[in-house]
Amino acid sequence: MNIYSVKFSEDVGSFFRSPVREIFKRVDLNSIYSFAGGYPSAETFPLEDIRATMSEVIDKYGGKAFQYGATQGVPELREAVASRYGVPVERVQITSSSQQGIDVCTRVLVNPGDVILTSNPSYLGALQSFRSYRADIRGIAHNDDLDAFRDGYENVIAQVKAEGKTVKFLYMIPDFQNPSGESLTLEERKMLVSLARKHDFLIVEDSPYRELRYEGSHIQTMYSLDPDRVIHLGSFSKIFAPGFRLGWALAHPDILDKIYVCKQSLDLCPPIFDQYVAAEFLSSGQLDANLQKSIALYKGKRDLLLSLLEEHMPDGVRWTHPEGGLFLFLTLPEGFDSVRFYDTALDAGVAYVAGEFFHPDGSGKNTMRLNFSFMSPERIREGIKLLAELLSNAIC
Amino acid sequence: MNIYSVKFSEDVGSFFRSPVREIFKRVDLNSIYSFAGGYPSAETFPLEDIRATMSEVIDKYGGKAFQYGATQGVPELREAVASRYGVPVERVQITSSSQQGIDVCTRVLVNPGDVILTSNPSYLGALQSFRSYRADIRGIAHNDDLDAFRDGYENVIAQVKAEGKTVKFLYMIPDFQNPSGESLTLEERKMLVSLARKHDFLIVEDSPYRELRYEGSHIQTMYSLDPDRVIHLGSFSKIFAPGFRLGWALAHPDILDKIYVCKQSLDLCPPIFDQYVAAEFLSSGQLDANLQKSIALYKGKRDLLLSLLEEHMPDGVRWTHPEGGLFLFLTLPEGFDSVRFYDTALDAGVAYVAGEFFHPDGSGKNTMRLNFSFMSPERIREGIKLLAELLSNAIC
Repeated sequence: MNIYSVKFSEDVGSFFRSPVREIFKRVDLNSIYSFAGGYPSAETFPLEDIRATMSEVIDKYGGKAFQYGATQGVPELREAVASRYGVPVERVQITSSSQQGIDVCTRVLVNPGDVILTSNPSYLGALQSFRSYRADIRGIAHNDDLDAFRDGYENVIAQVKAEGKTVKFLYMIPDFQNPSGESLTLEERKMLVSLARKHDFLIVEDSPYRELRYEGSHIQTMYSLDPDRVIHLGSFSKIFAPGFRLGWALAHPDILDKIYVCKQSLDLCPPIFDQYVAAEFLSSGQLDANLQKSIALYKGKRDLLLSLLEEHMPDGVRWTHPEGGLFLFLTLPEGFDSVRFYDTALDAGVAYVAGEFFHPDGSGKNTMRLNFSFMSPERIREGIKLLAELLSNAIC
Repeated sequence: MNIYSVKFSEDVGSFFRSPVREIFKRVDLNSIYSFAGGYPSAETFPLEDIRATMSEVIDKYGGKAFQYGATQGVPELREAVASRYGVPVERVQITSSSQQGIDVCTRVLVNPGDVILTSNPSYLGALQSFRSYRADIRGIAHNDDLDAFRDGYENVIAQVKAEGKTVKFLYMIPDFQNPSGESLTLEERKMLVSLARKHDFLIVEDSPYRELRYEGSHIQTMYSLDPDRVIHLGSFSKIFAPGFRLGWALAHPDILDKIYVCKQSLDLCPPIFDQYVAAEFLSSGQLDANLQKSIALYKGKRDLLLSLLEEHMPDGVRWTHPEGGLFLFLTLPEGFDSVRFYDTALDAGVAYVAGEFFHPDGSGKNTMRLNFSFMSPERIREGIKLLAELLSNAIC
């Protein structure tokens, strides 16, 4: 057989390889200074507590913990999530990762050519999923002026309508966005929800970092502003451990029902044992206790990174000041190409993610995303010194 | 918001709710005699060995067991699967359940209207997935006469070509098929592979029950007959435990690469901790030792079910004699409607799956699938007596 005679589906033509995952194929993360990826620090995984909880789950549930289970998720976890976030249990679908939440929302809502609005830049994994369904992605830059921010959206929506196309949803990460680290104000959230009502589209609110706040006060979710129009996606990856691949979707039951039927044919149900472990960890209060430790740890790393950038970065480099989350976004002088610079950096032993990949419109060549959760303070220190030195040489 | 204004994607119009999963929503499986579902017996889950292995995984891998991991699966599990099935590791993709394997194969190969050939009847979860991508499913009945069997396929393929359509793949469960319990002979497998070569389509070989053989000898996989043209899907659900939601796909690296990129946006990677547990269980030999016990248990249940049917079923009822797997297929007299009969049975406390749901052409109204793995021998005995009594009343 000549394998090249295989005719793949049209979707495959729009598949886009994650540059982040390609980096992981090239290098061992532990052998370099890695500001790439969005990995939590392994020291936030409470190994002994997890070991004890696993044993308790086996005692409590026996074989049921290893059997097939409900497509919506096991009742114990759905109820723990519902009670934590104050929503009715029939509005909770457990997902096999919040990436799956993004993917399945796109699957049930988007036909090829349909428009998805998002921030510019936006989360790479979401862009991958949107592209894979051949969505027409329109990225809209943030603007600190609320009227100008609204106008940016209104202009794009008017343009979309003029083209005879349909906006299916707006995808946003309102809290400590990936990649920028920035959050939307309450006024901005309200403005976007009112736009969604006015032009009758849905909002997919992706919220994996929300509980990792290091300063300031929590801002209402977009879901709480309009629980029928907003689909809220949550994740255990950053507040517990990503290796469990568990998240949740909160939505109007009629929307959730489509997600549920889709999930039947996607993978039948989320991992069962892992769900019971997460449910026990959540309802026992261990998750919150551990989360407080993670917040303290990450706050220290963020503060360290901010002070190191201040100390070492050459003139002409700017960066965001995230109040939470895992990332900070660097803007280099106009003309700098962070994709081209990447091999230089990797050869020297330091990795980041080029900002261009997060920009649906292909802009952002002079930007890069830095993660501060994964490495130890010592390695963050050494890594930033190295990166700053390389950038100084490249810019001058 | 009027939620009914939400415009779902065109795919959603073809979503098909699993009648099996709907049953599970209606009744507690343990409160009735359930011959429905494809659940392994919970007593085959080696709880104490799993507990010990989990603890070993935490000792051995530490935080790595709870971190993100490679999209292809963790190397330890890929290597264990590669070595068990004698294939190069670059041909192994770990999937988050073999249902995901089916779904992702369809996603990367099928455009709406493309033809998928399969047996009539065939696995419901696969039909769900195929329909959700708006595939044109053609079910072809088995025929014990090899020439007639081939002609059945040739006729359908000629018809598909006359319609200007494309056969993308043939989906088969050659070993102890779901729902029929029957297997393809080596000659039949060779014939189907040669048809695929002749007409240039792929074969998706779904093989979750292969290792549960209670008599006779193993027959070569279709994958081994043409590893470039056949995508082989395996599952840990029936040989270890379904609650881990782990399976694998074996395929030509160029095909696997598309599956890999698709999986990046589907869910990033399979559950990590679960993969390490499966890898340890497999490479330590515990999986095989446990599998031997499962085989002995299920053989006893199959033999019991066959003798009970012989003893209690009214005249005019026929059934298959599976050499392995979890299912047996019952054919009732012409005119019997097992969908209509379903409420009567459930009210009396016994569940099965109506055969019609497995038939892509809508036939098979007088058939039903019986599972023999889930219940205890005592409950199988009571359940069959009850079902036979109900059927006797309905038929006469």
